[in-house]
Amino acid sequence: MMHRLTRLAAATALIALPATAFAQTMDVAALRDAALKDDLAWEITEGLTTEIGPRLAGTEAEARARAWAVKKLAALGFSNVRSEPFDMKTWVRGAETLEVLAPFPQPLRLTALGNSGATPAAGLEAEIVYFPDLAALQAAPGGSLKGKIAFVSHAMTRTQDGSQYGAYGAVRRSGPASAAAKGAAAILIRSVGTDYHRNPHAGGTNFPKGVAPIPAAALSIPDSEQLERIVKRGQPVKVKLTLTPRQIGTTQSGNVIADVPGSDPDAGMVVVACHLDSWDLGTGAFDDATGCGIVAAAAKRIMDAGTPRRTIRILWAGAEEVGVFGGAAYFNAHKGEKHALAAESDFGADRIWRVDFKLPDGAAAVGDRVAAALAPLGIARGRSPAGGGADVSALIASGVAGIDLQQDGSRYFDLHHTPDDTLDKVDPEQLRQNVAAWTAMLAVVANAPEEIGSSK
Amino acid sequence: MMHRLTRLAAATALIALPATAFAQTMDVAALRDAALKDDLAWEITEGLTTEIGPRLAGTEAEARARAWAVKKLAALGFSNVRSEPFDMKTWVRGAETLEVLAPFPQPLRLTALGNSGATPAAGLEAEIVYFPDLAALQAAPGGSLKGKIAFVSHAMTRTQDGSQYGAYGAVRRSGPASAAAKGAAAILIRSVGTDYHRNPHAGGTNFPKGVAPIPAAALSIPDSEQLERIVKRGQPVKVKLTLTPRQIGTTQSGNVIADVPGSDPDAGMVVVACHLDSWDLGTGAFDDATGCGIVAAAAKRIMDAGTPRRTIRILWAGAEEVGVFGGAAYFNAHKGEKHALAAESDFGADRIWRVDFKLPDGAAAVGDRVAAALAPLGIARGRSPAGGGADVSALIASGVAGIDLQQDGSRYFDLHHTPDDTLDKVDPEQLRQNVAAWTAMLAVVANAPEEIGSSK
Repeated sequence: MMHRLTRLAAATALIALPATAFAQTMDVAALRDAALKDDLAWEITEGLTTEIGPRLAGTEAEARARAWAVKKLAALGFSNVRSEPFDMKTWVRGAETLEVLAPFPQPLRLTALGNSGATPAAGLEAEIVYFPDLAALQAAPGGSLKGKIAFVSHAMTRTQDGSQYGAYGAVRRSGPASAAAKGAAAILIRSVGTDYHRNPHAGGTNFPKGVAPIPAAALSIPDSEQLERIVKRGQPVKVKLTLTPRQIGTTQSGNVIADVPGSDPDAGMVVVACHLDSWDLGTGAFDDATGCGIVAAAAKRIMDAGTPRRTIRILWAGAEEVGVFGGAAYFNAHKGEKHALAAESDFGADRIWRVDFKLPDGAAAVGDRVAAALAPLGIARGRSPAGGGADVSALIASGVAGIDLQQDGSRYFDLHHTPDDTLDKVDPEQLRQNVAAWTAMLAVVANAPEEIGSSK
Repeated sequence: MMHRLTRLAAATALIALPATAFAQTMDVAALRDAALKDDLAWEITEGLTTEIGPRLAGTEAEARARAWAVKKLAALGFSNVRSEPFDMKTWVRGAETLEVLAPFPQPLRLTALGNSGATPAAGLEAEIVYFPDLAALQAAPGGSLKGKIAFVSHAMTRTQDGSQYGAYGAVRRSGPASAAAKGAAAILIRSVGTDYHRNPHAGGTNFPKGVAPIPAAALSIPDSEQLERIVKRGQPVKVKLTLTPRQIGTTQSGNVIADVPGSDPDAGMVVVACHLDSWDLGTGAFDDATGCGIVAAAAKRIMDAGTPRRTIRILWAGAEEVGVFGGAAYFNAHKGEKHALAAESDFGADRIWRVDFKLPDGAAAVGDRVAAALAPLGIARGRSPAGGGADVSALIASGVAGIDLQQDGSRYFDLHHTPDDTLDKVDPEQLRQNVAAWTAMLAVVANAPEEIGSSK
């Protein structure tokens, strides 16, 4: 690690002209290009995934991640580094096994969905009812699944922009509630993902008030296709499902926040966010240690170059995966402060290929300057309105401006919420391109003379 | 399945001239090219992996695989289809977990090696001693590992011919015995593999007489690199290892055998082999359901084309993975019969790229004709002596001729002995190229007028 910091110091020294020279006029291109040699985002990603590992929201592991984060951000020289705790209801995983009992006995691999109910400890034996997609499940008559286990597939495929997650994620988000309402004893879904490894994809589901949670789990994609083949042989398929997750009541989560103070408090803050928690199966490298590394590395580059006009606030949010509790806590605690713009990195760390904006008309030129600064990195301007990542979406919905730096998501849903989301998946070169893009964006936005955003 | 068989029947009808026309003069090129449309190898692979799934040697699942195999081979019209049972000592997996306790608490993923000893049910807590490779472990002073857990890495990389398995497999085969001899409480190794998924690679190890088995397990490669990073932080690393495998005593395994009777009993048999058992984590698609599909599909094509000169014997061996018990049982039971040549498919089902021979001088022309028939499939002639797969190596060592049809092994050790060895990994087009190569080889060898092989 020391070698990396030494190299970083040498690299940043090249651009560390006196701070006064930079007020509102940082050399965006020089900052961007120097960031292509960044090692800090990798160092943060490697540190968080190695020294903490999985960090499920509300658990002791997430608390250790907060302590790690406060120490790290303070050591990097940021200001006002602190943890802002909040309470949450916490769900934790238990045993999870599935055995096909008939007609072809064999084990299959799966993982419980967040908020899943539990089977008896000795397991639940029942027959499978197969549905090719969520619509077919929803069309099943009420009560028709009584005592059965619904098994729902889907046809999610790989896309660069990850847009299929919206549509195909519904089987996870609302399939369990639908099956429960029809009397099912449990539900199994094909993992919402695009890989072919024996690693199921975790993720949250929810049961509305009045619908008692049923056991709900995702099969890995090879296992899901295996169960489909077994079902399609035409004989009744009986399985034994054991899932013993628990709601452990109220525990503490929290956001970690750090600032790069700006010279003009009236200009409004620029919030750069990621989330610190992860699902519990992997070490949350792509989701979202890299995001935390990217936004902190970019903010540090601006800080090291001088005092920006606007305060840059780093938000490493807690408890995103399980319901964006950290984003909500931040919004509730800080909505009274003036925010100019918010952006979040929460889609891995493959190369950024597109930038989208939501800017007030008076700040259109800011978008033009950001787009021009990003073009040399191979980033095109999109036409979608920026919405932010989950943790800043409330801010943006409230009127704060937003910029989305869109990563290539072609392999994101191979890894998303799986045991395979580990450090080895991160490509250091693409990670550096991310830091360069964020640095360029911040160099423009944090120093822009225009009024940006409309909150407060 | 019916559609596939219908298409297969149509395809084979095109080349099904009267059998007498084919004695010793089958149209090798026509048989080879028709086999490029084969669906039978896929059907066998799909059936065995779907209807049986994992089939660890000596278990009830392997017994079901034998019953499935006898039924399938009989339905395909082969002669003398039978199971030849034998007894074996059987090891079965139990619980397997690893928790880093300090300095960075987190779970890691691993799997017990075959013949591993067990920890107490409540687990074993001990400190890690890291070795970069097997040589470093072997150089450790006797007694220096007392009460510790050895952790051994290695530098296996991807090769087309799989040649690194010989050298780097040693850490699995002899590392545990070495650690045990030095007093280690247990041993962890980096999986012998080339992938980056959270799927550890199983595989057998052995403890010599007088060395009590210790708990021995393989970490997945991402987990192994994670543990290396943790160790290299420099603080003592304490873990809790739980492995509860058991030796369950003597159970039954068996070989499944089927013949295509030849017209000349004195010419000696041609044995085409695979193994029916698999490791227990995956469904044994690449290892070795495809091999069984390939050799049976090729033999059926010869059978459907007429009566070959030599009897073709299909050997679907039992208990290969755990010690080649099926190959030994076959050799002991059948070494008195005249065998001309033996070959085995046990290296996945990616394209065959090379053919190697071990033929008596008088049969050199057979090798030339086989090589010529394979060249249009993109298969080059190698210079290594054929040694057969494990199940026929005793036959070949005894003087029987051999041909090795070498598959591209570039991704074989991504999947080998892992949960990821499932049907979805099989490429139907490359599988068909395998069938075409085996069909061409059999069409030449089973009908060759030359004397081949020297046993009996």
